[in-house]
Amino acid sequence: MTTEEKLKKYQDWLFKCSAYQMALNIIGIDKQTVAPEAGASYRDARSAFLAGELFSLETDPEIVALLKDLQEDPEVDAENKRAIQLYYKQALDTLCIPKEEFVAFKKLCDESFDAWILAKSKADYSLFAPYLKKVIESQKKLYGYRNSNLSIYNQMLDDFEPGMDEEKYDAFFAALKERLVPFIQKVTKVKQLREDFLTQSFPVEEQKKFMEGLLEYLHFDSSWGYQNESEHPFTSWTCENDCRTTTKYLENNVISAILSTVHEVGHAYYEHNINPKYDGMILSEGVSSGMHESQSRLCENYLGRTMAFWKYHYPKLQKYFPKQLGEVSLEEFYQAVNRSKPSFIRTEADELTYPLHVLIRYEIEKGLFNGSISTEGLDKTWNAKYKEYLGVDVPNDKVGILQDVHWSDGSFGYFPTYALGTAFAAQFMQAMRKDLDVDSLLEENHFDEIMNWLKEHIHTYGFRYEAPELMKMVTGEEFNVKYFLDYIEEKYTKLYQL
Amino acid sequence: MTTEEKLKKYQDWLFKCSAYQMALNIIGIDKQTVAPEAGASYRDARSAFLAGELFSLETDPEIVALLKDLQEDPEVDAENKRAIQLYYKQALDTLCIPKEEFVAFKKLCDESFDAWILAKSKADYSLFAPYLKKVIESQKKLYGYRNSNLSIYNQMLDDFEPGMDEEKYDAFFAALKERLVPFIQKVTKVKQLREDFLTQSFPVEEQKKFMEGLLEYLHFDSSWGYQNESEHPFTSWTCENDCRTTTKYLENNVISAILSTVHEVGHAYYEHNINPKYDGMILSEGVSSGMHESQSRLCENYLGRTMAFWKYHYPKLQKYFPKQLGEVSLEEFYQAVNRSKPSFIRTEADELTYPLHVLIRYEIEKGLFNGSISTEGLDKTWNAKYKEYLGVDVPNDKVGILQDVHWSDGSFGYFPTYALGTAFAAQFMQAMRKDLDVDSLLEENHFDEIMNWLKEHIHTYGFRYEAPELMKMVTGEEFNVKYFLDYIEEKYTKLYQL
Repeated sequence: MTTEEKLKKYQDWLFKCSAYQMALNIIGIDKQTVAPEAGASYRDARSAFLAGELFSLETDPEIVALLKDLQEDPEVDAENKRAIQLYYKQALDTLCIPKEEFVAFKKLCDESFDAWILAKSKADYSLFAPYLKKVIESQKKLYGYRNSNLSIYNQMLDDFEPGMDEEKYDAFFAALKERLVPFIQKVTKVKQLREDFLTQSFPVEEQKKFMEGLLEYLHFDSSWGYQNESEHPFTSWTCENDCRTTTKYLENNVISAILSTVHEVGHAYYEHNINPKYDGMILSEGVSSGMHESQSRLCENYLGRTMAFWKYHYPKLQKYFPKQLGEVSLEEFYQAVNRSKPSFIRTEADELTYPLHVLIRYEIEKGLFNGSISTEGLDKTWNAKYKEYLGVDVPNDKVGILQDVHWSDGSFGYFPTYALGTAFAAQFMQAMRKDLDVDSLLEENHFDEIMNWLKEHIHTYGFRYEAPELMKMVTGEEFNVKYFLDYIEEKYTKLYQL
Repeated sequence: MTTEEKLKKYQDWLFKCSAYQMALNIIGIDKQTVAPEAGASYRDARSAFLAGELFSLETDPEIVALLKDLQEDPEVDAENKRAIQLYYKQALDTLCIPKEEFVAFKKLCDESFDAWILAKSKADYSLFAPYLKKVIESQKKLYGYRNSNLSIYNQMLDDFEPGMDEEKYDAFFAALKERLVPFIQKVTKVKQLREDFLTQSFPVEEQKKFMEGLLEYLHFDSSWGYQNESEHPFTSWTCENDCRTTTKYLENNVISAILSTVHEVGHAYYEHNINPKYDGMILSEGVSSGMHESQSRLCENYLGRTMAFWKYHYPKLQKYFPKQLGEVSLEEFYQAVNRSKPSFIRTEADELTYPLHVLIRYEIEKGLFNGSISTEGLDKTWNAKYKEYLGVDVPNDKVGILQDVHWSDGSFGYFPTYALGTAFAAQFMQAMRKDLDVDSLLEENHFDEIMNWLKEHIHTYGFRYEAPELMKMVTGEEFNVKYFLDYIEEKYTKLYQL
């Protein structure tokens, strides 16, 4: 075969894979948003089968040989070579797994998700514990098949953030703890900011009306995006022009749905803005989870929690909630949105204490995989860590161990990327602010110009470059956690007049 | 292989087919409800590929041989035999089609649907005409591959309603025309009933609140059902416990969404109530389109347009729309819901003129397939027939030729089943009223008991018996159009005091 013929065969294979992947993504979105619960077992069995078909395609020996061949072919251009290398690595990681075990695991993940939904609705960890145990055991077994010198957990960390491992994360979290913990203590000693008005009753119908305007401001429109609701907000997509987000409305928390929307739309833009010629290829995905979270956290915190953002939006919010917010000034509202107060829920945590929420999960994951922590009584371990790190007493499993979706489908190693991405974002903002007057753009309804900067410098490349490489391209330096620590200390020093 | 081994192989194959079918159904529901429009071409290409994979499974020569073998195997029980015969017939009808043509047709249907959506939004038939032409040409070619003595259109009619053909439909419509046309003339001569209050402005938000109560009344709940919105209301499903309907809210028509919901929920119940042991098999579908429409039309007209139904719902509707309906009596409202007035839109037509809407479509379909009517200028043909049969001048294509979704994906031969199903329903109601006090049940919020009767007598059998056989089982007689004609004449004689 000529290189051209080989590439043609490779493209045909890519197209087939992308068709199964699209079906699984749409079935997944449907499951998490609108699908009737009683149909779950019927659907779960069948989507596991389809995942198995994709598995067979991805591990087809003929294709694996083709990928190996093509990745050494000098006539293949750099972009295709990068994609082929990634597919080849993925195939090697996967083909060692017996297909029936892979399919059974997919089915288990769907069932485990269903159990998590039920357990959360009843605030009862014991309903979810047996599934979590099985998911961990299965993951250990499946990762164990790989030909790798890394520990299971290090393999998982590397899957979500290529190049990262326990040692590096330990160092990263140590640096965070070193400056954050004493600083948080300082903050908690001074006079607290008001926030009681945020937790009044805010009828969801009115929140939805405000949301319409917010989505317009974000230029997140029906030509390429769609928002729905789900138990845990998420973003999914099939291609550049089909990115879906979800949110969750809380009647007693008016900023939860707003900031979770800005967060998820950040993910959606990343996918939307990737070079369209990568559509359907592995290159058309964000390069790592940390990089993805950097974009969502950048939108949520570095844009969505600024005074400039609220200068534009707060008068609109007041109009929908005159009784609740009519007497609250913009300054008071801004302070409340940013007030630091140790709490139970990661997704609603303030910027300052947020990394500690992630740290707790990271420590538990490490323990689950090195055997020092067990799924039995994990709710107690969870609550003890919240007491230790954040000083709070978790009242029940719903706002405790069951709050996050991630472990239900075996996504261990994902959580630390939230903290890493948050720190990435600080460094990106530093660079962006050199080029753009971000505050004026936010205040004057030009969110699109900020997105264009991110598109040009980060999004468009998709999976083309590794995260450290991209960081250097965008900011001129290697990743350095000090940008985040400087930013957060400066922000909170000012906010609390320390 | 023993019969048991053969059946095992057959069951494995069934499961695989059902997985692809489920994926295609969910992708289809997603496409018609929430999927971002700009992603359509990416998705359409891939769902056509998946339809092709299903095609390959369904026409796998080894499986076709197995089906042929099993349908003659005396050890196979009657239910499996019936299913195997249906699959075998389906395979024979399909395997003669070249796969690439089949896949291209699926893609064309999706593109044609997209073009129809666009054309409808612009009320411009010319944007849809080239797609309609291609769809018809493709259908002629694909049906032409079959080894059949029947004309193409007769094959299509038979696909939707086994046993029916042009000759039988001609006779059926002739019988309708013979009694309906002079009767309609009589009705239009007498004093018209008021209906102006139905077309005031009814804010959609309030309509949605009423809908919540209606869905509860119908016992259509989130454990097995879900309602969304779409351009053209439809029902789809993946299994007994996952049935989805859509509706469409019109601000200037308060009963449109209500009656379309009752209609679609009728379809949903049919699928929900089929014996669960048929899940994932061909037997788990309504036996014919006419039988399916009989259930939806039964709900819409024979239940949803009764005085008893409105005795329960009208006070609730008035509460949501006190300004619009506060001064309108139940009797006036009931009359308006049932008033007969020739109009443009089939789905909003009254019971009396509805069959004429269907007749127009039937005549056009016949013409398109025997060559006497062309897609060029079809909007004019459409409008001329509406003038001739219903005496109305169609103001634009949106409420004219573009109103229905059916032709966009090549579903010719479906329309006549609406009229047939409507007539089936009259005969079923006659039987049901012998067993149940339907009006009291409707008035006293016992919709479930009516559904239980339909489940027991009709739904549970799914595809087990042909429509004529089922009709005889349920009513003790063969289908007779006189039940419908007697019913409609009696109802409208009373309503118009003729």
